[in-house]
Amino acid sequence: MIVLWELEGKGGRRYSLFSWRTRMALRHKGLAFETRPVRMSDKAAIAFSGGGTVPVIKDAETVVRDSWAIAEHLERTYPEKPLFGGDIGRGVTHALNAWVDRSIVPAMLAVIVADIHERVDPADDAFFRQMMEKIVRATLEETRASRDQALRRLGSALAPLQATLKRQPFVSGAQPAYADHILFSVFQWARVMSPQEVLAPEDPLCAWRERMLDLFDGFARNVPVA
Amino acid sequence: MIVLWELEGKGGRRYSLFSWRTRMALRHKGLAFETRPVRMSDKAAIAFSGGGTVPVIKDAETVVRDSWAIAEHLERTYPEKPLFGGDIGRGVTHALNAWVDRSIVPAMLAVIVADIHERVDPADDAFFRQMMEKIVRATLEETRASRDQALRRLGSALAPLQATLKRQPFVSGAQPAYADHILFSVFQWARVMSPQEVLAPEDPLCAWRERMLDLFDGFARNVPVA
Repeated sequence: MIVLWELEGKGGRRYSLFSWRTRMALRHKGLAFETRPVRMSDKAAIAFSGGGTVPVIKDAETVVRDSWAIAEHLERTYPEKPLFGGDIGRGVTHALNAWVDRSIVPAMLAVIVADIHERVDPADDAFFRQMMEKIVRATLEETRASRDQALRRLGSALAPLQATLKRQPFVSGAQPAYADHILFSVFQWARVMSPQEVLAPEDPLCAWRERMLDLFDGFARNVPVA
Repeated sequence: MIVLWELEGKGGRRYSLFSWRTRMALRHKGLAFETRPVRMSDKAAIAFSGGGTVPVIKDAETVVRDSWAIAEHLERTYPEKPLFGGDIGRGVTHALNAWVDRSIVPAMLAVIVADIHERVDPADDAFFRQMMEKIVRATLEETRASRDQALRRLGSALAPLQATLKRQPFVSGAQPAYADHILFSVFQWARVMSPQEVLAPEDPLCAWRERMLDLFDGFARNVPVA
């Protein structure tokens, strides 16, 4: 049985976006796993991994940290039901991973950061505020005031993916693969921690998100959300 | 013999960035081809393709237009030496194609548009200026004045690719594939039409560009440049 360490917020919400990449990858491979909740401010709980961030997995005796390294480990160890589909797919998916992390994640964070703050574990309240206000260079209260602008910036950042999803049902083509799990993690993070709808109903990303929520018997749909 | 229609500027410079994707894809597949220069303002020369833009190829009796459609045609018709490496690779490469076209191409255009204008076919001079000033929403003269700002925006747009190329030698992983040709086309466009160096020597993109210029016996290196 694989064990996954991930963040837990109020009401049992599992909100680490990077852990959602790992959750989806594990289900994609058809692997059973159990989870261990970790507080954001409690680095000691995952010190055994050699790092201070989730996700961390333990697969038999192997400990792997970092969502990308975990995806590579799963693809290497369980080659059925591919996440990358070979060397080229893995290489290009890495480029997409870097793009999502540096362009789309910050754009989404600016929209939902105050909503996330309301739903983290109370023990993480001050830690979260201090860390995030540094990252977004504004107080949480200021981010609420500039939300419309942040939503427009998010829309611009997502435009290339809208174009892609007009042509094909998944980022990875006809079927979902790890590139979809990467992008989906950003929307699942929003869905679990924010009551705002960030997509217009006619946006091709909206129908794609529904397809992702349907995967693995509604695995990502049936969780505590905002 | 495959025939490629592409733009020609002053001094025999082949400067269509989208045609460079096709040129590299053809050489990647080891396919011989000859080229037909087209002026940007001369839509009649390629009307047979059903469209008004290059690249267009004629492969035996099959005419294909649009660089993405050409890449798919080549991969389907000549499966050896893969450009995508399967369905997942093709899907994710399409997402990368859309990202480069909507984020990196406009950022590069803002840096080099006035340089390109000086090197287009004199018959395209007015046509090019009118079209490009609409796209960049500035006169060519204004773009020269705001170049430093444009260079910084280009640097931000390229940051995810710098991160990827610190980890792996090509966008597509250990070996180049179509995702590399997509990105390379933007730098080759700049190289052929602008005397400016757009990358710092320590940028991982700089060493990657050299590796791309070395491919296929220096195919992209040995052409008329700015």
